[in-house]
Parts: sequence; structure tokens; C-alpha cells
Amino acid sequence: MAARTQNVGHDEQEYREGDNKIMIRVAILGATGYTARELLELLLRHPEVEVTALATRSEENLHVADVHPSLRSRLDLRLENLTPTEVAQRADCVFGCLPHGASAAVISELLAAGCRVIDFSADYRLNDPAVYEKWYQVVHPDPARMGKTVYGLPELFREQIRGAQLVANPGCYPTAAILALAPLLKAGAISPRGIIIDAKSGITGAGRTPKPNFHFPEANENLTPYNVGKHRHTPEIDQILSTWAKVETNVVFAPHLIPMDRGELVTAYADVPARTTGESLQEVLRAFYKSEPFVRIVDHLPGTKDVSHTNFCDVTARVVGSKAVIVSVIDNLIKGASGAAVQNFNVVHGFPESTALL
Amino acid sequence: MAARTQNVGHDEQEYREGDNKIMIRVAILGATGYTARELLELLLRHPEVEVTALATRSEENLHVADVHPSLRSRLDLRLENLTPTEVAQRADCVFGCLPHGASAAVISELLAAGCRVIDFSADYRLNDPAVYEKWYQVVHPDPARMGKTVYGLPELFREQIRGAQLVANPGCYPTAAILALAPLLKAGAISPRGIIIDAKSGITGAGRTPKPNFHFPEANENLTPYNVGKHRHTPEIDQILSTWAKVETNVVFAPHLIPMDRGELVTAYADVPARTTGESLQEVLRAFYKSEPFVRIVDHLPGTKDVSHTNFCDVTARVVGSKAVIVSVIDNLIKGASGAAVQNFNVVHGFPESTALL
Amino acid sequence: MAARTQNVGHDEQEYREGDNKIMIRVAILGATGYTARELLELLLRHPEVEVTALATRSEENLHVADVHPSLRSRLDLRLENLTPTEVAQRADCVFGCLPHGASAAVISELLAAGCRVIDFSADYRLNDPAVYEKWYQVVHPDPARMGKTVYGLPELFREQIRGAQLVANPGCYPTAAILALAPLLKAGAISPRGIIIDAKSGITGAGRTPKPNFHFPEANENLTPYNVGKHRHTPEIDQILSTWAKVETNVVFAPHLIPMDRGELVTAYADVPARTTGESLQEVLRAFYKSEPFVRIVDHLPGTKDVSHTNFCDVTARVVGSKAVIVSVIDNLIKGASGAAVQNFNVVHGFPESTALL
Amino acid sequence: MAARTQNVGHDEQEYREGDNKIMIRVAILGATGYTARELLELLLRHPEVEVTALATRSEENLHVADVHPSLRSRLDLRLENLTPTEVAQRADCVFGCLPHGASAAVISELLAAGCRVIDFSADYRLNDPAVYEKWYQVVHPDPARMGKTVYGLPELFREQIRGAQLVANPGCYPTAAILALAPLLKAGAISPRGIIIDAKSGITGAGRTPKPNFHFPEANENLTPYNVGKHRHTPEIDQILSTWAKVETNVVFAPHLIPMDRGELVTAYADVPARTTGESLQEVLRAFYKSEPFVRIVDHLPGTKDVSHTNFCDVTARVVGSKAVIVSVIDNLIKGASGAAVQNFNVVHGFPESTALL
Repeated sequence: MAARTQNVGHDEQEYREGDNKIMIRVAILGATGYTARELLELLLRHPEVEVTALATRSEENLHVADVHPSLRSRLDLRLENLTPTEVAQRADCVFGCLPHGASAAVISELLAAGCRVIDFSADYRLNDPAVYEKWYQVVHPDPARMGKTVYGLPELFREQIRGAQLVANPGCYPTAAILALAPLLKAGAISPRGIIIDAKSGITGAGRTPKPNFHFPEANENLTPYNVGKHRHTPEIDQILSTWAKVETNVVFAPHLIPMDRGELVTAYADVPARTTGESLQEVLRAFYKSEPFVRIVDHLPGTKDVSHTNFCDVTARVVGSKAVIVSVIDNLIKGASGAAVQNFNVVHGFPESTALL
Repeated sequence: MAARTQNVGHDEQEYREGDNKIMIRVAILGATGYTARELLELLLRHPEVEVTALATRSEENLHVADVHPSLRSRLDLRLENLTPTEVAQRADCVFGCLPHGASAAVISELLAAGCRVIDFSADYRLNDPAVYEKWYQVVHPDPARMGKTVYGLPELFREQIRGAQLVANPGCYPTAAILALAPLLKAGAISPRGIIIDAKSGITGAGRTPKPNFHFPEANENLTPYNVGKHRHTPEIDQILSTWAKVETNVVFAPHLIPMDRGELVTAYADVPARTTGESLQEVLRAFYKSEPFVRIVDHLPGTKDVSHTNFCDVTARVVGSKAVIVSVIDNLIKGASGAAVQNFNVVHGFPESTALL
Repeated sequence: MAARTQNVGHDEQEYREGDNKIMIRVAILGATGYTARELLELLLRHPEVEVTALATRSEENLHVADVHPSLRSRLDLRLENLTPTEVAQRADCVFGCLPHGASAAVISELLAAGCRVIDFSADYRLNDPAVYEKWYQVVHPDPARMGKTVYGLPELFREQIRGAQLVANPGCYPTAAILALAPLLKAGAISPRGIIIDAKSGITGAGRTPKPNFHFPEANENLTPYNVGKHRHTPEIDQILSTWAKVETNVVFAPHLIPMDRGELVTAYADVPARTTGESLQEVLRAFYKSEPFVRIVDHLPGTKDVSHTNFCDVTARVVGSKAVIVSVIDNLIKGASGAAVQNFNVVHGFPESTALL
Repeated sequence: MAARTQNVGHDEQEYREGDNKIMIRVAILGATGYTARELLELLLRHPEVEVTALATRSEENLHVADVHPSLRSRLDLRLENLTPTEVAQRADCVFGCLPHGASAAVISELLAAGCRVIDFSADYRLNDPAVYEKWYQVVHPDPARMGKTVYGLPELFREQIRGAQLVANPGCYPTAAILALAPLLKAGAISPRGIIIDAKSGITGAGRTPKPNFHFPEANENLTPYNVGKHRHTPEIDQILSTWAKVETNVVFAPHLIPMDRGELVTAYADVPARTTGESLQEVLRAFYKSEPFVRIVDHLPGTKDVSHTNFCDVTARVVGSKAVIVSVIDNLIKGASGAAVQNFNVVHGFPESTALL
């Protein structure tokens, strides 16, 4: 702990005296947001990590504890406005918590400088620049890497993540939706057509910037759908599900804002072949995830609090009439963001996958 | 106000001296619950009503203000354990807030004694005793009135409600779901097959009795589906929607518990004919509800807080891909219970429909 | 209701045809805030009021329902950027919901034009321009009226409010604190020295403008003191309490932000003479408020929900060791702002004091 | 982790094969509550601990994951109705989460059998059986150990805790109050007479048993004082503060229930000698706690969320008029209960004090 509260004295040092242990030097870009805070909470428990730089373009020169009070006395670093070159000098691995568009521009420099990158933005999740441009309304700054970057869902793409230099950390909604649906689509247990994803999220998902909709007296004691049919996670969900379904899915995605800090629940509806039962769906899910440390197939209907502050995803499936109803829950800031990033970091580097996550 | 804080001295008195105005004497059965409290809040503003009896089988002899502190100094009545005969002597109209099963047994006596009744329970909502028995697990105590009792949704059944002696006040979820879907089904604008109703409700909907799931530290910061495919409001929704669709619907109904006091939101999904647009659905809804005082067709996605503490239902419809997405919001305690009951009371007695509701 | 949804056609008209009834034409300045919304909810139930103008310097030209969705279909007015002269032409009585400083500048013009004004700002609450300048950091624009304007707490100053042209509507914290303490100070039942006021408020008290501290993920599941010893309501409390104590009080005032929409609770601590009992304090309070419609002296410890959405203030007093502990609760938006304003409006005009408030 | 998900095969085994490491075998009594759940979350991260038994008299035979869903797949133990003898056979150290009275009866047996015990109940906190009997309304079952048991606040009593067989884990309110006040009393920086402790707590502090006051629709959007002057933590606070003040304190203690899951804030008020400044109080606090890992003296007014899910206590002191205002915040379930217990466990056994707590 003492070591973690000090910035490393010189950048090239990778060996710590006393234990001679190599630590991975880690930087965070966009260190003022909630995902960065959660990431720091996790990394401070990671025995192989030394956090060496916190980059930001806002609130610079503040001490990290002035932005994230929970970290006071645990991490003695200031936020700095750093160039990619400066970041690359200080870090072996960079977690990028930047907005889309801004992220890819910086990341291509970091990759060129030899850093590994776990990117929280959407920039490397989609394969097709045209789809990206349509949904994100910007021209992609690094189209060459699109379609060649692994989608960081270890439960589906673990082998490609191992040793990868760049990992596209999934969106929170896609994580909950894909973990619930991909195995069933792969097994042909549900129809790929007409899938409905009714999603509900706590308000940390909206980020740390105050806006009218997230003002406490507006959001509290309120429940609102938003961006129905228009949310940017839609093409990301369809891209991955289509791969597993081997046919194009066109999900209807309807997110809702829930008056709570954290937690995300997906209720997905899909047509099923005759004679499908809830138990047959559960068997497919149990078999698919039987060795996974972070997916728990449960028989009851799970609530978001069951997984709050954890990296777990709890899933269950039912059949009602002619429809499958599949429910999954995650903590949007952990399995939906920072926990997934640490899980990817562990897979990339060959550490036990649950290090710092249990 | 002074008059309302005194119990009437003798039961037969219907004329008040001073203004010679006939007041409807009103009793409430099951007066300890949240719907009873909300009902009292509304009735205290109703110029044609005198509350004369509060019946209960629990917490009897308590002053109403000890059970509902907000009513202190506004209503000077005690809770009493009254027989139906005693209730009928004191009241012209009875609001029944009793549990299913218990309700019908009492109500048949009240009707025989000449009272009008607005029943909050499910007992007279369903037409078919067998369906009732299957979903409620009890034999109906008064099957003869099933199928002959008007369903108290004035927007759909106003003419039958006028002058009725017994009105079955709708369930909260059915109100939000039916107001959203019935006009579209009637117009053939959506398919009656494969309708999905993903519903979300605040926790007052679960009543005033403490239970583990509604214990604050369990329910707060949590979001849980419950009774998916098994909720008792399902046959009620199907019965009414089938009437308007002129074909049997078999909705998939999935309710969720939201960490807030009040408010209910339905997100309904239905297949649509080719070339259907959101605007064409909105036109059907606007035309259907154009004279309704309490249904507002809006172009934005409404939140529950827009209608909190009101008798309004806000509705909007979209098309996403090949599906209609229809959203409706109500306050589960007002338009979903006590406000609807007062609206029915007004229609029954020929008072202006929004009396005490605006 | 129909009449209320139409703007009056010509300003000078005070008689409505049909009923020949004089309506008070009312304007609201600063109509976009929460207090304005609550005020409108109350005024729409007031039989003597016609809302004729909604003035604002922000969000102008929007329909009131686009700013306050709960008012949709109930009030058909647009927000307008109006000069004081224009407001005075349209309204007999103006409710000012403007920030301090801005308020007095406008109000002096309205008064000159003959309007009555209920001012929600702090501008006319303090008697001493120097105290105002010290706490509000601005020079008062209308010092001549300071000390000559009635403080709008009818329970203490009813006679001065009757017929007044200008009423200074009290702050929310002062309302809860003064109603709890003034009678006890007047009776000498508690010591005027060393009074501590530990106050707790829901977040609507902070207004409708999004700020970091009121961002849902910051304020939810959080509890924070703020402005301890520095809150601007301090001199207002001391000014009124000193009058009733006949000696200068110097209260320690410590407000806290509570993760809820509305409600305010004051826990006040004061030294008591030997042999004082809780019951003796209660007797003083009961005697003082015995004819008051909106103050309820209760024997239990009240919660804010007991008075939520009402104009009531519930108060109780205890003695613990050598200290009195006095607890009072109000709804900060009703008795702490808009309800009090309507109560003042009623007293000013000679209407029954609880009109539109029960 | 794998090892932790298995119950140990035979009780006497203290060596694990593979690493030959001695693990402390730990049992929890009263394993169904929130403090037990939080304790398990922490112990699962403790490298020196093996959880071997979960005892309960309710919900027995259930799997721990059915009571605490967040622990699913992390701990494979069932709840058992165990005698003290059975517990002593399985565990070296026992964490007692039983109610007062019940706790001491069991603990004396465990101590006789050679177990170490960290007791969450109040049974061994007070020195004087008469005080215990007055406040807890039961005769103490083990009065001989009263006054000889160390009070488990390491910041004040670390030396006595080292190697202790029995530690009385402090109450949540006393922890926050004593950490704020003891150093100032010791230094004579505040007066020991007339101290007021206005405390506010989230609702997990009330335990896991559903009761009307903690029913979500009652507790949410509500703020209530309770047990003012009568709370059982009062004598505990006075006993410890009196020791440090070297004169008897008689605090006025007024707790309040806040609509949030966790977090506790104490606002304490005390008279100060002339010329005392906030900075002089801060200096006393900083000096006293300068080597403490879990107390942070801050210059801003802290909020409970700053320490949520942590073992920290943040404290600040101000002077307002002639009073000190001292604010402290803790997480009632961590530093106020289970984190403190693990901290005590570490001190008792000589492990680094922050093991499993950062």
C-alpha cells in the first residue's frame, strides 16, 4: 500500500526494490469519470499493478482525492494534462476512459509507442466505419483498426483477448444483453428475428457531468425511457449477436433510466420453437457458462442488487406462452465497464482472470 | 372543512343545514392501506362527499390520523370493525379496498342493502369464474355477478358506468396497458398476437404490509422483475384487450419493481403492418382520446414523474423496425387506483368527471 | 377549469361573464423553477384566481407544459420575457420567484404600478441593509422598504399581512425553525442563548439548475452538511427570533442535504430552566397554535412524509437532560415556499386562509 | 479462492497442503444479517482467513447464497443451527452478530472453549451492569466480564486489543461520535458539558428484519428522528467520552433515519473556550490521528458517500460563534460494524491492520 501512494520516481523503473517484482505500470486517460474511479478502486487491489499516471483534459492539476474523495489517502497522484507521448513513457498499459472519437485519435498514438490499451470508448467496438459514422455522427479517426480489434467480452472472445495489444471494452448494455442472448442464439434455442431488449439502468451510466435529466429532483422518484430505437449500443449488440446467430439480428432496443446509482437489468424477449421450455433454455446457458467465473445462471429472477459492486452477471431464462423471457443483471460500472476492463487486463497479461475482482 | 372533520350525528341525515345541500355519504372498507389514504385525500376535496365510516379488520379503534399521519386535523374519524349492515346504514356509496375473495363476500351484502360500490379488488373484473379460480386460487363467492359488472375504465366503458350500482375498479397495470393498447388494437394498427408488456412499478403498488422484498435496504438501489408470466393482472389485460381486438390476445406480461414510491410505466411491444409509422399510431391515439380529460397523447417519451400525484395517463407510440413501441405512464395510486375510483364515482353519480381530480 | 386554460382577453377585465365573479389576476415572475410549479398546482385549485402571465428570462416562449410536464392540459400559457410594466398591466397580484437582488429591482416597479406582491426572494425579509449586504454580497436596490415590509409568517404576523401590498415570503429553513422556537422564546421556556438548529432538507430546496452536488449519482445515497455557520437563512432566523425573545439570539445553524425530493426537518436544541419538562414545552406550543389551521403539535416524533405535499408544519418538543429538543417538519416547497405564499395571498385578500391549501 | 468455496474436511486441520500456511478458522454467529454479509465480503478477501461455519437460529439449512445472493459462487457453506460447542470445534475465532443478551450467553461458552471472539453486540461494551440493565432492560448474563473487556476502537485502545481473547466491537453511532470528540475532549479543546450529538443513519443500521418503519414506501422520501434521548448507544458514548474527558459527559444524543442504504453522519456541537478556532481544533485532530490508517481529517465538510463501502472515518471541525461543530462520517456497516471487526481481528492476531480493508 505504501508503494501505491507514491508516484514512481523514474519512468523506466519496472523493478521494485525489496521484492524485485515487476509491476505493470498503468495510466488512465479521462480519469475524472465514474468508470475511472471504479477502475482505480479495483486496480489498487491488484498485486501486479502500479498506477503511474492519471490524464485528463479537465480538472487538471487537482489531486485525485479532490475529484474522487473515496480515494483520499489511498492514491497520491495528481491529474495531469498529458500528451500521448508522455503517457506512453510512464505506462505499459493504458485504460482509455475518453469519449468516442477523441479516444481513437489518442489510442493510435499509444499503440504506435508500444503501449497496451484497454479502450472503454465505442471507437473500436464496431467493425464497419459506415455504421460507426451513422450512429456516432463522426468520421472514424482510425478506420484501419476497425474489424481487427477484439471485442473484450472474455466469455465469448477469450482466446483473441490473450496477448492483444488493443481491446475494445464492451458497452454496459451490450454486455448484459449479449451474455443473456448469445448462447441461446448459437444453440438455435431462440429465434434471431424480432428480439426485443427492454433495458433498465441506474444513473451512473449517464456519467459524471450534471445535466437536467440527471438532476436529483428530476431523476429521483422518476422512471423514463430514452433513446428508444436510437441508442448507440444498438449496432454493437446487433453486430455481436449476428455473429453468434449466423444471421443478421435487428434487435429493438429500449433503454430506461432507473432512480438508483448503479445496476443494469436486461429483460429480453424472443420467439422460441415449439416445445421449448424454460428449463431447456437454462440448460443451454448452464452448459455454455459452466466454467465461467463471472456468469451465474440462476433459477430465480435476479435483481440488480445481487451483483452490485461485483463483476458478476446473473442470468435466467423462462418461457411464457410462445416467447422466451431472458433476464440478466450486472453492475454497470463493474461488469459493465471497469470490472470488465480489469478482467480483460488479466486475460491480456495472463494473470488469473479474477485477480482484484473477488 | 369544518363539516368534514366531524362524523355525522345521525345516519339518515342527508341534508346539511346552512346550505341544504345533499352530500353523498361515503364509507371506505379496508381503510388502512395506501389506496384508502389516497382516496381520502381526494374525497376531502370533493364538494359532494361526506366521509362517514372507515371500516377495517386491523388496527381498529385507532384514529385515522394515527394510521395516516397526513390526515391529522383534516378528518376526525376512527377506524371501526363494522359489519356490512352497519356500513350500509351509514353510507350511500362504499369504496372497497379489501383483498380479493374477501371483497366479493362483503360487497354482495352491501349491494343487497342498496349501497353503491366501487370495488378496488379483482373480484368483479374478470368475467369467467374458472379464469378467476385459476389465477386467484380461490372459488369466487359471488359468481353470478361476474360478467355483468362494468369494468371501471371510463375512457372505454363510460356509458355502462353511468348509474351503475357496482363498478369494478381496474388494476393499476391493466389501466396503463389497456389505455396504451386498446385503441390501436381496435383500429387494427397493431397485431393482437405476440404483444409484450414490460411493466415497471413503484413500491406502493405492493401495499402497506412490510415484507422482506419491500424492506428498504432490499428494495432501495435495486431493480427486480417478479411474477413474470404469472402476475394476476395478466388475464384482466387479456380479457379487455381481446374485446377490443375482437380476437384473443395472449400478452406476455413482465412486471418489475422500481425503487421509488409511486409511478408506473408500461413499455408495450407489438408487431405492426408494413408502412406503419409512429405518427400513424399517434394519430389513432389522438383521435381516440381527443375528448378525454385524463389521457394525454404526447410526442416525447414520458416519465412517471410527469403524472405523479395526478389522475393523468400520458401515452406515446413509436415504430422501431417492425415493432410498435408504446409507452404509457400513470401514478399507480391515483389513475391506477384511487383517482380512477373517484372518476368512476363521478361518472356513476353524474358529477363533472374531473371533480376533486384537478 | 376551461376558463383557467385561457389567457384573459383584455387586461382591464376583472369581471367574468356568466358568473359576474371577480377573479384576482395573478402573474408569476421566474416561472421556470420548482416553487413556481408548486404555486401553479395550488393556484389552479383556487376559486378566486386567474393565472394570466408567466414571466421568465430563461426558456422564454416555451409552453408552460414543456417546462412543467405535470401541468400539460391544465394551463394553456406560454412563458414570456415581460417587463414589469407589462406584468402590471396583466396582473393584480404578482408572485415573485426571482433570485435575491434581481427581485427587489423589479418589485419596486410593480408596487409603483399598484400591484400587490408576494416575494419569495430574501430581498424584503431582513430589516437592516448592512446585514443584507454582508450575507448576500450585494447592495440592496430598494433599502427604503427594508424594515417596513411584513414577514409573511401568518402564525406570527397575521394582522400586519392583512391588506399588505408587499409580503416577504419566508425562507424554508426559517419557517421550520421559527415556528418551532418563537413561542417557546416568547414564553421564556427556553434560553435564547446557544440555540443550535440542525436542519435537514430534500434536494428540491436547491432549485432546478443542475449542479455537481445535485447530480443524481452524487446526491443519491449521500448525506452532506453544507454552509455550516454560513447559510444565508441564519440572519433571517436570528432577526425574527430576537424579536420574540426580546434579546438577541445568535443561533448556530447547520443545514444538511438529504437524498429525497422534498421535506425539511429542523432539530433544534436549547438550554432550559430547571424543572422544565417536555410536557410543559408542549403546553406552550399547543396554547400558542391552538387556532392555527396549519400547525399541528404532535406527541410523537414527526417525519417529513407526514406533511409531504401539504401546508402543515408538525412540531414536538422534548427535554433531554438539560436541553430542550424541538423537532419540526414541513414540505419545503409548500409550507416552506408556495403554500405559504398562497396562505399569505389569502390573508392579504381576506379569503378563508386555507383556500386551495387543503 | 477455490479453497474458500469448500468447507474444511476435518476441524482440527489448520495446515493447508500445497502452501503449508496456517489459516485462521472463522465462524460467524447470526449469519443472516447485513453485518454478517458485509463481514463475509471482507473475510473472503483476507489471506489469513478460512470461513468454516455460519451459525443461525433462523433460516437454517439454507445455503448462504440463498440468504445473501451477492455471495453466490464465492462461498459454498450452509447456514447451520450450531451449539457453542460445535462452533468452538470448527473455529479459532468467532464473530458474534447476535442480539444483545443472547450474545453474552453464547460467548462465555466460546471463551471457555478457547475461542477468540469479536462481539458485535452491546453486551461487553458497557462497564457497569446497572447501566446495562437500565438501558437494555435485561439482566446481564455474564457481568463478571463487564469492565474487563476491551472496547474495540483501535484508534483509542489498540494496545489493549492486541492479543485479546474477547473484543467488544463498538456500536456504529459511538464509533462516529467518539472518533470525532475523544481527541478534542482529551486536549481540553471543547467543553465536556452540554455536548449535542445529532446523528443521521442509513437504514441498513436497522437490520434485515422487515418492520413498518423500514417498509420502503414509509422510509423512502422520509426523514425521521427516533429514540431521541433514549437510544441505547447513549451510555456507550458517555462511558468512553467520560474516560477521555476525565469528567462525566452527559451527551444529548438524537439519531435520525435517512432514506439511504448505508452511511452515517454525526454533527456534534460543543462549547469551546474563548479564542478557539476551527483550525486549532483541526490541529488537535490531525495530531491525534496522524498515524491512523482509517481516520482522515479533512478541511471540507465530508459526505457519507466519501466513505461508502470503506473502513474510513472522515472528520472535520469548525467553530461557529461560541460552539464547535464537528462532523464525522462512516459507513455504518463497515467502519461502524464489520470493517471495524476485521480491523480488530487484524490487531488481535498481529496482521497488518488494513489487511482485507483496502
